[in-house]
Amino acid sequence: MTAEELFVDVALRAWKTNIDRFEGFYRDLPEEQLEQEIAPGRNRLIYLLGHMAAVHDRMIPLLGIGSRLHPELDEVFISSPDRSVASSLSAAALKEILVEVDGALWKAFAQWSPADWLARHTAVSEEEFVREPHRNRFSVLLSRTTHMASHQGQVILATPRA
Amino acid sequence: MTAEELFVDVALRAWKTNIDRFEGFYRDLPEEQLEQEIAPGRNRLIYLLGHMAAVHDRMIPLLGIGSRLHPELDEVFISSPDRSVASSLSAAALKEILVEVDGALWKAFAQWSPADWLARHTAVSEEEFVREPHRNRFSVLLSRTTHMASHQGQVILATPRA
Repeated sequence: MTAEELFVDVALRAWKTNIDRFEGFYRDLPEEQLEQEIAPGRNRLIYLLGHMAAVHDRMIPLLGIGSRLHPELDEVFISSPDRSVASSLSAAALKEILVEVDGALWKAFAQWSPADWLARHTAVSEEEFVREPHRNRFSVLLSRTTHMASHQGQVILATPRA
Repeated sequence: MTAEELFVDVALRAWKTNIDRFEGFYRDLPEEQLEQEIAPGRNRLIYLLGHMAAVHDRMIPLLGIGSRLHPELDEVFISSPDRSVASSLSAAALKEILVEVDGALWKAFAQWSPADWLARHTAVSEEEFVREPHRNRFSVLLSRTTHMASHQGQVILATPRA
């Protein structure tokens, strides 16, 4: 493995670790617990599940992989706070969507070379990218990994203490 | 900037963003609010401040930078849950320690070449490292960035809603 490949390998392991932890948390959760809040008056677990699916789905066009699979998630889980817009999606459906979206991302991730990772993401113009080459796909990978970790730190608060 | 340097640059920006956010949260917090819990019966803000200082202080020997600056933090903020061991350190002292430790890390980080980042960390043996070259300093940087993000997601729950 070259040095460049090692940097990518380490970051993909961090992404995968956090994906497994987040998806695993919801996989093991009894359906009725999805209505629980992470803290009094804060987001419910089901909202953060839908939020993660929406944010990861937005990564598909942002990283130039393709078109979104579930743009309908945004109105409920990104543009609006919890409980303000009704969702017709069940918890089971949201879990499936998250796994589907994460799978689509991983399919691309597993094929990209280090140069692919250093290519610009689609929210930065070619002109800006010349001046700011750090605004690449790799930076999206790291920022979405920390985004996931920040919500993972929250969802575990909704479960009984060990 | 070479490709290898770009991977490091992106990861250091992610680290720094999270450091600024975490330190900034505590810098702006009135002293009396440090006794607040992130959720009922969970860690207090002051505990997570000390915990972060301890975990980052442990990175100094883990990354081969030098000896620990504040090993006394571990008993209260790593080995024990919140409220089980009394600490003689004030919130102001803990804030200073965190900034001191983060500064010591950054001094090393700013000087390292990509090859330095791919060197093994001290918790892995030379033999293991031959088989598992991803257990390097870069992996410590990423995992401690997500660690910080997970607690950042928690501490913001203790403040009034916007």
